[in-house]
Amino acid sequence: MATAHTLASLAQRFGLALRGDGQVRVSGVGTLAAAGPDQLTFLANPRYRGELASTRAGAVVLRAAEVESAPCPALIASDPYVAFAKIAALFDPRVAPAPGIHGSADIAASARIDPSAHIGAFVSIGARSVIAAGAIIGPGCVIGEDCVVGAGSELVARVTLVMRVHLGHRVLIHPGAVLGADGFGLARDGGRWIKVPQRGGVVIGDDCEIGANTTIDRGALEDTVLEEDVRLDNQIQIAHNVRIGAHTAMAGCVGVAGSTKIGHNCLIAGAVGINGHIEICDNVVVHAAGVVLQSITQPGEYASGTLLQDHRSWRRNATRFKQLDEMARSVNALSKDPKR
Amino acid sequence: MATAHTLASLAQRFGLALRGDGQVRVSGVGTLAAAGPDQLTFLANPRYRGELASTRAGAVVLRAAEVESAPCPALIASDPYVAFAKIAALFDPRVAPAPGIHGSADIAASARIDPSAHIGAFVSIGARSVIAAGAIIGPGCVIGEDCVVGAGSELVARVTLVMRVHLGHRVLIHPGAVLGADGFGLARDGGRWIKVPQRGGVVIGDDCEIGANTTIDRGALEDTVLEEDVRLDNQIQIAHNVRIGAHTAMAGCVGVAGSTKIGHNCLIAGAVGINGHIEICDNVVVHAAGVVLQSITQPGEYASGTLLQDHRSWRRNATRFKQLDEMARSVNALSKDPKR
Amino acid sequence: MATAHTLASLAQRFGLALRGDGQVRVSGVGTLAAAGPDQLTFLANPRYRGELASTRAGAVVLRAAEVESAPCPALIASDPYVAFAKIAALFDPRVAPAPGIHGSADIAASARIDPSAHIGAFVSIGARSVIAAGAIIGPGCVIGEDCVVGAGSELVARVTLVMRVHLGHRVLIHPGAVLGADGFGLARDGGRWIKVPQRGGVVIGDDCEIGANTTIDRGALEDTVLEEDVRLDNQIQIAHNVRIGAHTAMAGCVGVAGSTKIGHNCLIAGAVGINGHIEICDNVVVHAAGVVLQSITQPGEYASGTLLQDHRSWRRNATRFKQLDEMARSVNALSKDPKR
Repeated sequence: MATAHTLASLAQRFGLALRGDGQVRVSGVGTLAAAGPDQLTFLANPRYRGELASTRAGAVVLRAAEVESAPCPALIASDPYVAFAKIAALFDPRVAPAPGIHGSADIAASARIDPSAHIGAFVSIGARSVIAAGAIIGPGCVIGEDCVVGAGSELVARVTLVMRVHLGHRVLIHPGAVLGADGFGLARDGGRWIKVPQRGGVVIGDDCEIGANTTIDRGALEDTVLEEDVRLDNQIQIAHNVRIGAHTAMAGCVGVAGSTKIGHNCLIAGAVGINGHIEICDNVVVHAAGVVLQSITQPGEYASGTLLQDHRSWRRNATRFKQLDEMARSVNALSKDPKR
Repeated sequence: MATAHTLASLAQRFGLALRGDGQVRVSGVGTLAAAGPDQLTFLANPRYRGELASTRAGAVVLRAAEVESAPCPALIASDPYVAFAKIAALFDPRVAPAPGIHGSADIAASARIDPSAHIGAFVSIGARSVIAAGAIIGPGCVIGEDCVVGAGSELVARVTLVMRVHLGHRVLIHPGAVLGADGFGLARDGGRWIKVPQRGGVVIGDDCEIGANTTIDRGALEDTVLEEDVRLDNQIQIAHNVRIGAHTAMAGCVGVAGSTKIGHNCLIAGAVGINGHIEICDNVVVHAAGVVLQSITQPGEYASGTLLQDHRSWRRNATRFKQLDEMARSVNALSKDPKR
Repeated sequence: MATAHTLASLAQRFGLALRGDGQVRVSGVGTLAAAGPDQLTFLANPRYRGELASTRAGAVVLRAAEVESAPCPALIASDPYVAFAKIAALFDPRVAPAPGIHGSADIAASARIDPSAHIGAFVSIGARSVIAAGAIIGPGCVIGEDCVVGAGSELVARVTLVMRVHLGHRVLIHPGAVLGADGFGLARDGGRWIKVPQRGGVVIGDDCEIGANTTIDRGALEDTVLEEDVRLDNQIQIAHNVRIGAHTAMAGCVGVAGSTKIGHNCLIAGAVGINGHIEICDNVVVHAAGVVLQSITQPGEYASGTLLQDHRSWRRNATRFKQLDEMARSVNALSKDPKR
């Protein structure tokens, strides 16, 4: 029952050039190393070029520069990874769950659920919340009060929207994510902490994707905002009143402190830490494990940190780092001495 | 139906000086930039001073030094952020959920639930656990065996207390937090790992707050302990047998390894990593992304790491770091040479 | 009703030498500082040697070199921590929950549950999934479609297996963990992101342990794989298509990016970040907070980062790091100058 497509039909559908037999049929996708004769594969990352000659795939998507090396019929794309993503989606057998509300769900009387939405087992929905057309709320999700889940959005399972969380259209949230928890607002009063009420919400734009166990706190007074098509990986922490610009993507384990604004089209690599109350402009790339303490006003690539070494060498070098200022002064003095 | 207060009544209630018309009424709070004529705003962080002149707020809380610049009636506070937090709490419309046990909850026969506690949908409570007066257990929480939730404590939703977790009074835990899971105790035996049973518990003092998706493991033999008024942000990892002193606060993504003791009144910034089996004294501040490998015996501010740069410059500098010890030796030799 | 064992029986059972009265009975375990006369304690970490003389424990496990200092009967072990772990397990009063399916569980018709398995409250199990003999699925777990939970495995509570997750025998997963969520596959197409379908699964070998709130994504085409006896602490992120070799252990907050292969018997300390598409050989140790950007081909210990200092000194040294390349060039020039 697998869907099958001819290379010719795929070439036409996605505007790709064809080299070789267009009647070859593929019914799935695979890696260069593992794909079989009824599957399509792809070469995007030059690191894997060595696997092309021996692939058993029925067909391959690759760049024009590589096509002479292809041992099978090929589709030519300027960006093979994008083309592959679009073709692979044809074979992805996701069946949307049926509309309706599971008998076990606990839904407040003032909540409004569109008839075409799917509400799964053990879901809890609070007062005045709205679930729009075609939304999918998987098992164990908790949606608190005054939330909106926009049309076509999906909460896979065990997602929590605490309160005042507004999801746009086609937002996808993976298990364990928590949106709308209290921002970390504390004031110090006579030796103790007092809590600053967090009266804002969270606004997530259309087509955003939020990874497993990622947390996005609601704002203190204004909202915490993700613009459209923002993509967050797993285990990311977004503090209260952060604003993330459209089409920005962040890899796993990033942390962004409160009130920081990040521009459009930024790429934030894994484990980056970003300070609060700063501003990062559009088109900024921050490399893995970088720490951003101050605003970035110029597009470009940025990094911090040190490189891995054997532990013994590292220990010696790290010890010297603690005297780097003295060392620099010595070097300056040596450089200036007329006798030198 | 919004609560409204006159400035005069707020000044009296919170011991603040008043400048201007005390009959001005406010029914909410807002930022300098967004507040309207029926709202109170505040100026605490000098970074935002430029927004004061143009605020449309009905009134502002600020320091005495700023009051001449206020375009509206003002309340004067030595710590405007604290004053604002207390006033904002008057307008926070949180309505406590009604006492009682949701019909779907699964509660062990030997558990004891105070009649004034609220137990939400899909909550699971295990043998011998106790839920005290006024406690709120939100939807989807799992409380295992031998736990105690103290009076006035709240588990917002989807919180797990695995076993032997003891919460004091007025503890607030945000969604996805896991307390009392097995500490990471492993012993290496003939090429394989064997698990070390974790037979302790977790003790959380009064007024602690624990962020979303934060994890606190139970101890191996003794307990893992948070003293009173400890505030933990999201995505924090506290390993087995850690002890955190009263009034210490940690920002998001901090990790503390096993058996470490942290003193009172410490401020641990985001993404800090703290080694195991060390001791940090009272009144220590560790800056963002710092790595603490050894005990700290003196109060003060500490940091580690490098500063962000454009990627090309960083690459060159990071490469030099790998030869820092050699460089230091060269500098020492140059400094000592009599001919130099 | 506590279990009690004589030292003589413990010595025989675990192949340990005995010094002193073999008829001493112990009915539990405790730390050097806190154990009482009916408990066994241990000395493994030399850091705690000072506590040995004053222990009130009924007996102690330690190395031969320490036995003269023991104030009580002793069991002698070459690895006291391993011996203690095995003995402690005799006193760990874990009672397995009874077989059967809780009345509230929501189980797909095509799922297969072994009669000896335990399915807890509010558990959701999807189509074609299989739960094998003696498996324990705790409250609030969500198991999606096409999953397998192998014999004797346990999901403590609130664990999510999204789809196509295959657990071997005796796998233990702590609360909040999410296995099988979509890998972070994105392709950039004309200014927007498109999602790359993640069609692989997750395979977890026998005897693995996975910590609280840890996330392991499923693969893009092939599976994400943990070999047998891999131990992951809390808050770890494992990206799609990673492969982790047998007997490797990782402490809390580690992040491993996509398609990386890690060998056998590696020890990855807390908060380490590991780049994608690299390979780490067997028997590698990476120290806490290290960042691994390139493949490691030699067994040994590795580290990166800088050491903590008072903030003022750190600030000066970190500023100098930004000119390290210039400094190195100056030093080289000074070293070469014939006049010098």
